[in-house]
Amino acid sequence: MNAEIIAVGSELLTPYRKDTNSLYLTQKLNELGVEVIFKSIVGDHREHLTQASRQALSRTDIVIFSGGLGPTEDDLTRDCVAEALGIEIKRNPELIAALYTRFASRRLKMPPNNERQADILAGAEILKNSRGTAPGQWLQTAYGGSDKIVILLPGPPGELEAMFEGECLPRLEAALPVEYIATRQLKIAMVPESTADQRAAAIYKKFSDVQTTILAAGPGEVQFHLKTHAKSQEDAEERVDELSSLLEEEFAEECFATSGETMEQIVGYYLQMRNATIAVAESCTGGLLAERLTRVSGSSRYFLGGAVVYSNDMKTHFADVPPLMIVENGAVSKQVAAALAEGIRKRCRASYGVGITGIAGPTGGTEEKPVGLVYIALADGKKTDVVERKFLGDRERVRYWASQQALDMVRRRLV
Amino acid sequence: MNAEIIAVGSELLTPYRKDTNSLYLTQKLNELGVEVIFKSIVGDHREHLTQASRQALSRTDIVIFSGGLGPTEDDLTRDCVAEALGIEIKRNPELIAALYTRFASRRLKMPPNNERQADILAGAEILKNSRGTAPGQWLQTAYGGSDKIVILLPGPPGELEAMFEGECLPRLEAALPVEYIATRQLKIAMVPESTADQRAAAIYKKFSDVQTTILAAGPGEVQFHLKTHAKSQEDAEERVDELSSLLEEEFAEECFATSGETMEQIVGYYLQMRNATIAVAESCTGGLLAERLTRVSGSSRYFLGGAVVYSNDMKTHFADVPPLMIVENGAVSKQVAAALAEGIRKRCRASYGVGITGIAGPTGGTEEKPVGLVYIALADGKKTDVVERKFLGDRERVRYWASQQALDMVRRRLV
Repeated sequence: MNAEIIAVGSELLTPYRKDTNSLYLTQKLNELGVEVIFKSIVGDHREHLTQASRQALSRTDIVIFSGGLGPTEDDLTRDCVAEALGIEIKRNPELIAALYTRFASRRLKMPPNNERQADILAGAEILKNSRGTAPGQWLQTAYGGSDKIVILLPGPPGELEAMFEGECLPRLEAALPVEYIATRQLKIAMVPESTADQRAAAIYKKFSDVQTTILAAGPGEVQFHLKTHAKSQEDAEERVDELSSLLEEEFAEECFATSGETMEQIVGYYLQMRNATIAVAESCTGGLLAERLTRVSGSSRYFLGGAVVYSNDMKTHFADVPPLMIVENGAVSKQVAAALAEGIRKRCRASYGVGITGIAGPTGGTEEKPVGLVYIALADGKKTDVVERKFLGDRERVRYWASQQALDMVRRRLV
Repeated sequence: MNAEIIAVGSELLTPYRKDTNSLYLTQKLNELGVEVIFKSIVGDHREHLTQASRQALSRTDIVIFSGGLGPTEDDLTRDCVAEALGIEIKRNPELIAALYTRFASRRLKMPPNNERQADILAGAEILKNSRGTAPGQWLQTAYGGSDKIVILLPGPPGELEAMFEGECLPRLEAALPVEYIATRQLKIAMVPESTADQRAAAIYKKFSDVQTTILAAGPGEVQFHLKTHAKSQEDAEERVDELSSLLEEEFAEECFATSGETMEQIVGYYLQMRNATIAVAESCTGGLLAERLTRVSGSSRYFLGGAVVYSNDMKTHFADVPPLMIVENGAVSKQVAAALAEGIRKRCRASYGVGITGIAGPTGGTEEKPVGLVYIALADGKKTDVVERKFLGDRERVRYWASQQALDMVRRRLV
């Protein structure tokens, strides 16, 4: 079974308003085994909305509308759905009475246009609105020779969610065939999306029953989203586990999370497991690495301190980099990265020290040391590794890449 | 002229991913006088995407696709648009060469599937991607007897925005009928949205011809977007200037930018103007303030260094906070904030020193010192101001609020 969600309202076509109802509805539908295959956003426009309704009915089993059920002339969902389905609308006398009572109870006179909220599609069931005046509607009908479920919900998220939970879920559970879904999410560090895809394709193509989506989630992070349906929850879990295990094997070194954890959380987790602490000295990342490490609540247990050492003086002052070393090799060099890592480790008496120096750009590059060149060092008192990388992209991306590389180096050392 | 935006990608049909590109595109199109009348979200599915393309072409003048231009088999936008338009695709040899060069410059072997990124619709112009590998495409063509503009953009917001700004805007401006529009954007620091609206409403309501939108742009930042149309550019500019001046007067102290500058840029600008330097010592913000200051290219001219001092030891070690002061007042106190600001200022020999200490949460709060309590200090060698704030929201928001408050204190001291 599949679904389309149509969000109705001209305000959703401005730069300032996001449709968030569809995320809620997608999650609820996915849990029932219903896939959302289209989302549309349409203004308060009779012709556009009727056309969008027809298209949705012609291509999906379940069509859910949010919004456009209010009392004003702009509220067109009822009319347009009726026109698309070629059915009548009837004004429900009990609903009219209830509306008048509701207004009277608040000692208000009901404006007559409110009666429009009592317009019901022929054959539809009324969905109670526990948080507002506009009732929803549920219609099971035929269109183009197939069975369709059409659901009309109010736009305000509070009203929509209460109505979906209380009125739609029981009806959907009764109407849908039983299906079980399992999902997994793998996160891969520092592998280009195309390389990740190439290495994974040979594996996931053998699992035609598991839907696999590859996502570049930011500099240095690719995600695999796996999802399958089966006749029992056990079967579904087994099938995604099988694919997940093969992918984890292929990306044994690069896969850092299998349950949605962030890179910072994973690094924090390993540091705590090893009873270890960390300190960082950053030049071009300007504090981003420290900021990422401390995004995790409780990071004070393993993160001791950081120094942002932009100037040469500060590199010496906070991390004891020998001034002569900077003169001889330049501030952006393997040697200085290593000295930063070693210096900050000693200063903070940490188990691990990280040093980063590079050219984030857009200015400051030379032919020999171009924008994007970054040295990242990791010291643990016994050995110091230094990696030279040439990152592409703007200042923000170069800085993020560098912080990601640093976190991944720490992770690999700790695993 | 009207437009439809089609966001492509199965991940956008999950509960986890919002399409944010369409908000950016809507804003840019609105500024050109183009209305967005439909937004669609389609998965990586050949038939669905081709169908959605045909519908969009049949109902709007400009059709913009975001996403689906990558190298993987899932990336179908090029193919489906070609099929919908009934035109050929040609693999561009120069683009292939450029792709190989790009990989070679990073010392990587290019997976052959990357060549798909060089597939160009017959008659289309190539839009350069300054931030990634997938080029965009611009096609002016006829469909169903009308002129259409078809634009293919990459999905990652950074790539899409840079490409739209650099490659699409000039082409759209040339292709669209002339209209005179003037816009202004004012940014206000540390005023709640509702208060800002209340204070502004009395002013902007007198300007019924200037469209005014108020936007909460993040913790501690509210934006006013002003926009008007007129018969000449001069008339339009004069009208928004008039309103802008009145708002700037009302928010004389809180308005920090009138030309789109970020808070970090403004602070950097004032520091350079005063030939001053800055250093920061951060506890709860964990490096965020240093990271924000150094987002600005060229910040090395005024940002000397920063220390992330999570533990008490580090507060003493890097910023000379007396250990007894911490024992007597607690690490989260006015006294320690002031000592951090003064200590880091002296250590780095900077004109200004900032100290931040607080409880970002979600754990670590007490009745006396709850989550969200933050002390922010600014020292210049003559006087040290300390502000106590109680910020609402989660860890991320509390940290951002605190960094914004710190930047705004520096700004106000420098103005």
